[in-house]
Amino acid sequence: MVNLEINLTQVLPRLTTFIHEKITRAGYTRGVINLSGGLDSALACYLAAQALGPQNVLALRLPYRTSSPDSLAHAQLVIDALGVQSLPLPITEMVAPLFARFPEMSRLRQGNAMARARMIILYDQSEAFHGLPIGTGNKTEILLGYTTIYGDSACAFNPLGDLYKTQVRQLARGGGVPEPILRKPPSADLWDGQTDEGELGFTYAEVDQVLSLLVDQQLSPEECVQAGFSEGFVQAVVQRMQRTQFKRQLPPVARLTDDHR
Amino acid sequence: MVNLEINLTQVLPRLTTFIHEKITRAGYTRGVINLSGGLDSALACYLAAQALGPQNVLALRLPYRTSSPDSLAHAQLVIDALGVQSLPLPITEMVAPLFARFPEMSRLRQGNAMARARMIILYDQSEAFHGLPIGTGNKTEILLGYTTIYGDSACAFNPLGDLYKTQVRQLARGGGVPEPILRKPPSADLWDGQTDEGELGFTYAEVDQVLSLLVDQQLSPEECVQAGFSEGFVQAVVQRMQRTQFKRQLPPVARLTDDHR
Repeated sequence: MVNLEINLTQVLPRLTTFIHEKITRAGYTRGVINLSGGLDSALACYLAAQALGPQNVLALRLPYRTSSPDSLAHAQLVIDALGVQSLPLPITEMVAPLFARFPEMSRLRQGNAMARARMIILYDQSEAFHGLPIGTGNKTEILLGYTTIYGDSACAFNPLGDLYKTQVRQLARGGGVPEPILRKPPSADLWDGQTDEGELGFTYAEVDQVLSLLVDQQLSPEECVQAGFSEGFVQAVVQRMQRTQFKRQLPPVARLTDDHR
Repeated sequence: MVNLEINLTQVLPRLTTFIHEKITRAGYTRGVINLSGGLDSALACYLAAQALGPQNVLALRLPYRTSSPDSLAHAQLVIDALGVQSLPLPITEMVAPLFARFPEMSRLRQGNAMARARMIILYDQSEAFHGLPIGTGNKTEILLGYTTIYGDSACAFNPLGDLYKTQVRQLARGGGVPEPILRKPPSADLWDGQTDEGELGFTYAEVDQVLSLLVDQQLSPEECVQAGFSEGFVQAVVQRMQRTQFKRQLPPVARLTDDHR
């Protein structure tokens, strides 16, 4: 077992300092967060409120027609507890023309379009609020590519990107995120009954262990199997990382500069 | 004067090879392009049709209510000349709910939302077409940050990103792009009468020279002034590059890994 426990008294102030530095060095005082009602954005909102002052944080609630009422209620818990500014802006009408034009659209395509519609509003409202869009993606989902490129991964900077999901939970608990948000199963809430672990086919507790062995400790897949994880599971994780590498890099450009000088 | 002339017989096949390799190595045979009616996307479409075969290229025409009729006509010239597949999908209704909710929205905010709505369709249709979204941004606009982040700069790969705008024009002329597209003033066509050079405050011919001195030849701003460019102009270019650096990198993440091991 890899020990993924983090030192709250060290990590919490580092993250609030990071947020404060990123905002102020860019010449801003304010930040905007897409507050989904889930764990990651709740923690990011707590950190931002601490770093910038609650009056300098705008929490957007961007529900789709089918979004769970729990998600909205949980987002409201965070807004009320922190006293941050908030704005509800449903995305339903923005994506409706596309969904109507392509009624055969898969849930994946729909979910991607929804995540990107939320990005449009996050970026637009960061302009209106004179702030920067703060990212909420965790290390587990980034490494697994369990994100929509140019959608939920879009931000000016990301305070949570080096924290595995299990560490986000630990930090959220220590940081005071409300109990109902800590307890519920992680979900992108893109359709009814969706859960991250159901969709991925493994638990965060398991995959965070394997990812840490592969990425932080640089073990080979074979060594992960020797450490006690099933070969099929390790392979599935490695393949996910490889197939989604494009989400973690800038688009490659055809390099010509040496040619035409 | 920096000589920015390119060798067509070398560069054209390098770019088509690049496109072919990027598509096939990712396991695909097809590509999708947002064909605006402008020079860059026209050239990208010509290159893609050559690299992949016209039947494997989908040209999207994504007009807004106020888009110039010329833009649509010019996109159609390319589609007809190449025989690529095409699909018109107006973005007007997608952005209308946001524009209605914030009637005070600036042209900048509107333009950004429109560029991002086009990205949503480009990515959605690349999924539906089983292809990859091909970028059309040139080196000049990338270096000047004259793009919408997560909007027109979003792509799987970019064949034009190492070509200055003046080189794109040269290549487009050599590659057979129709005359009306070569002749018209460059414009993002986000509002009536918009031209790139009017908005930027300098011509592509001038700025490509300075960018090449600064970026390719690594001259200092002072050396650019000594080379004959006005101090105000050189400073404006340097400042644009600095202020838009965030558009050319991945969002920074709060690094913790050394702490919590």
